[in-house]
Amino acid sequence: MQDRIRNPELRSRVMSAQQAAALIRDGMVVGMSGFTRAGEAMAVPLALAERARTDPLRITLMTGASLGHDLDKILAEAHVTARRIPFQSDPGLRRAINAGEVMFIDQHLSETVEQLRTRQLPGVDVAVIEAAAITEDGGIIPTTSIGNSASYAILAKQVIVEINTAQPLSFEGLHDVFIPIYRPNRMPIPVVAPDSRIGLPYIPIPPEKIAAIVLTEKHDSSATILPPDDDTRAIAGHLIDFFQGEVRAGRMDNRLAPLQAGIGTIANAVLHGLIDSPFHDLKMYSEVLQDSTFDLMDAGKLTYASGSSITLSAAKNAQVMPHFDRYKSRLILRPQEISNHPEVVRRLGLIAINTALEFDIYGNVNSTHIMGTQMMNGIGGSGDFARNALISVFVTKSIAKGGAISSVVPMVSHVDHTEHDVDVLVTEQGLADLRGLAPRERARAIIAHCAHPDWRAPLADYFDRALALGGHTPHLLEEALSWHVRLRKTGRM
Amino acid sequence: MQDRIRNPELRSRVMSAQQAAALIRDGMVVGMSGFTRAGEAMAVPLALAERARTDPLRITLMTGASLGHDLDKILAEAHVTARRIPFQSDPGLRRAINAGEVMFIDQHLSETVEQLRTRQLPGVDVAVIEAAAITEDGGIIPTTSIGNSASYAILAKQVIVEINTAQPLSFEGLHDVFIPIYRPNRMPIPVVAPDSRIGLPYIPIPPEKIAAIVLTEKHDSSATILPPDDDTRAIAGHLIDFFQGEVRAGRMDNRLAPLQAGIGTIANAVLHGLIDSPFHDLKMYSEVLQDSTFDLMDAGKLTYASGSSITLSAAKNAQVMPHFDRYKSRLILRPQEISNHPEVVRRLGLIAINTALEFDIYGNVNSTHIMGTQMMNGIGGSGDFARNALISVFVTKSIAKGGAISSVVPMVSHVDHTEHDVDVLVTEQGLADLRGLAPRERARAIIAHCAHPDWRAPLADYFDRALALGGHTPHLLEEALSWHVRLRKTGRM
Repeated sequence: MQDRIRNPELRSRVMSAQQAAALIRDGMVVGMSGFTRAGEAMAVPLALAERARTDPLRITLMTGASLGHDLDKILAEAHVTARRIPFQSDPGLRRAINAGEVMFIDQHLSETVEQLRTRQLPGVDVAVIEAAAITEDGGIIPTTSIGNSASYAILAKQVIVEINTAQPLSFEGLHDVFIPIYRPNRMPIPVVAPDSRIGLPYIPIPPEKIAAIVLTEKHDSSATILPPDDDTRAIAGHLIDFFQGEVRAGRMDNRLAPLQAGIGTIANAVLHGLIDSPFHDLKMYSEVLQDSTFDLMDAGKLTYASGSSITLSAAKNAQVMPHFDRYKSRLILRPQEISNHPEVVRRLGLIAINTALEFDIYGNVNSTHIMGTQMMNGIGGSGDFARNALISVFVTKSIAKGGAISSVVPMVSHVDHTEHDVDVLVTEQGLADLRGLAPRERARAIIAHCAHPDWRAPLADYFDRALALGGHTPHLLEEALSWHVRLRKTGRM
Repeated sequence: MQDRIRNPELRSRVMSAQQAAALIRDGMVVGMSGFTRAGEAMAVPLALAERARTDPLRITLMTGASLGHDLDKILAEAHVTARRIPFQSDPGLRRAINAGEVMFIDQHLSETVEQLRTRQLPGVDVAVIEAAAITEDGGIIPTTSIGNSASYAILAKQVIVEINTAQPLSFEGLHDVFIPIYRPNRMPIPVVAPDSRIGLPYIPIPPEKIAAIVLTEKHDSSATILPPDDDTRAIAGHLIDFFQGEVRAGRMDNRLAPLQAGIGTIANAVLHGLIDSPFHDLKMYSEVLQDSTFDLMDAGKLTYASGSSITLSAAKNAQVMPHFDRYKSRLILRPQEISNHPEVVRRLGLIAINTALEFDIYGNVNSTHIMGTQMMNGIGGSGDFARNALISVFVTKSIAKGGAISSVVPMVSHVDHTEHDVDVLVTEQGLADLRGLAPRERARAIIAHCAHPDWRAPLADYFDRALALGGHTPHLLEEALSWHVRLRKTGRM
């Protein structure tokens, strides 16, 4: 207790999750820790859902990104979540969002706290933050993620801290909390390399703002990524060939540029592929650090990784956490505002690798909406990175549902990333390098290199007939979305 | 001559435009000055077009943005322009682009020179730069625009300078040339306010790179903006009401935040509207400075303006230029990489006002493609600003072609700015404040406040029927683009 709550006066604020949850009232805005199922507060939201059975309440719930432990499902099903900002990945909450029961504001992950600070979003009433410890001065030492926790705690009227004793105290010193100064006096963010330390190792708030402390002992939910398969290995292979081409062309050396990879199976597999590559002394400047980050470190390939969270599979977690000190000097966790900040992403010149749901023959990418209407997870950080990267890569398998769906379509049913922000597209079929190409040239490259052989002819046919009508970006508007319509009607595009 | 070409040795390199143009050969990449019809080199491109009649050649032409004096038309019709980067606004070139005769690479204006420096675009062989003078050390003093001129001159193998004696020497000291350091050693861009001076007043290149100097005497093409009308005045009025609301809510004071406004009639009219407003001590951090900039200065409303070019109507030009020293201390022209840089735009927290061709009920904006296929001008700087602004505003008239076209549609036929990057939409009908709203809420606000009364019922009908199918972003994919198809077939949406 003494090492977990170092300010003696604060120890008197330890209470049950139910008591702490009583601070949250109907209509409030609640900012919670948690990013890619890492470091979320759990006891208080569970108590809130329990209480809602007899004492209904509706809140606006803001987090870093996705929550683990089915919390988003539990809160949505308890009708606690009226509004949700800025990202989620829970099937239960997703159902409620698509049914219009929960208003979901899908935001670039770097922007939420900007909008809060400028009061363009409703202010945070209560912050609920998981911590490894509280310092003598009331500073909060986060656990496996920072996300938006620092700004939520700083901006909230009251803060509830969940001290999670299952997380090691050795996390202390891992985090780097930096909050930009208010405009018009804002100065540059002084991150000039992935390993730049520019802030404090804890979230600085006055101790009197900590209204409640709840003791918990929980482990993060395990990552749900699948192991590499033939397709993801092929995608990794195409990308490694491309990087080798960049080295041969003298545009980079074998250390490449700092890497960012989105969450999920494909991006993880791509990074994994770098283990057996000629590249070395790699660095990451990303948002989530997955299994592949630690595998690359173990393989001696990766010298430093900056992120906003650590999300591991159960096996990798069991392997890494007991030896965390072995990795700590090569790791940093930052607020997502900084890990994803356009200023820093552009300055460092990242290779950004993110996952598409589908892309079209001109290189527009849909990352979020199935059939243009059903929200999957949200845009997350993909826009923060893709817009400002040195090289913006999107990856996906060329087909889905056993070939009934082509991931390469005439026109995407929803646009998250426009052609202006997409440099390279990769499927297991191959890689299209779109840099410096006009739309008509992009179409030929994408159809030839990325589309599945079964869908190449229909795509080429669409493009040829659209070409006959002319235009900078030729389209047949009557047919542009017909593949999606046919899929809904017949089960096949 | 002595004050225009201050390095005596360089005076021997004065030659005719024809002689200078001979440096440009078939297949070359040529980087020319010129941004929003201001400060473009003219004599050499005209000589090139003339030469192409008997000696055909094809080049990749890069500029800052649009060229004046029909140069883009003349070069396209002479078949000199094979590829064009990153923006244009010429009807003749536009025709060639849409016919597929010229490959146009439509880019965020801040990004072209990033891609050149990292050799992701073919290198510049020859730069052709209009200048007011050349310093003793070979430094080039630009005229009414900087655009990409500095990086083109620095990166090119050879530089042709057109000394335009019609432009006053008093431009010296107006410009601020700053080029970011190469990665991985890049440091923050030290602009912390619109008036930050961080670079040199000339483009620094070694004098031996100046291969030719051509003497010209030309005036910039006049801006083609139309005077305010009832609709643009109404748009300005709605926006001023909105700003007053922001002040009442305590989110800003009467100095507002630094303003950016896209080129064109509507944005110019909006700024004009600020003359009769309670706001004062305004600042601009924009790309093009139009008539309204100087009108606001004359009215005592605007204290400082940063841009990349000055583009005036003939009347305003005649009024401003003879008294340029009166304005000079309150003006700065920067490379477009800096005027539009995400890092600086985000740091300063701009109010960004850009023009939409059309937007949809969820707030996605089409800035470039008529009917989803025909290129108009290009995305220009709108994405650089909209993504990173404090408040991102898009304006348009609610109808076009006498009411046959609604600018508010079920689904835009092309997406340049996604809902994530659009905070406020304004037509003469009213203003939709989309901040913190989910898509279903955005649709109701946009239909109620922005759509023309004649089109509200059809839009509401579409939305209601889409709602019945559900989804985070409800759509009827069969009908989503049917308004555009109907317009093509019947002349009316």
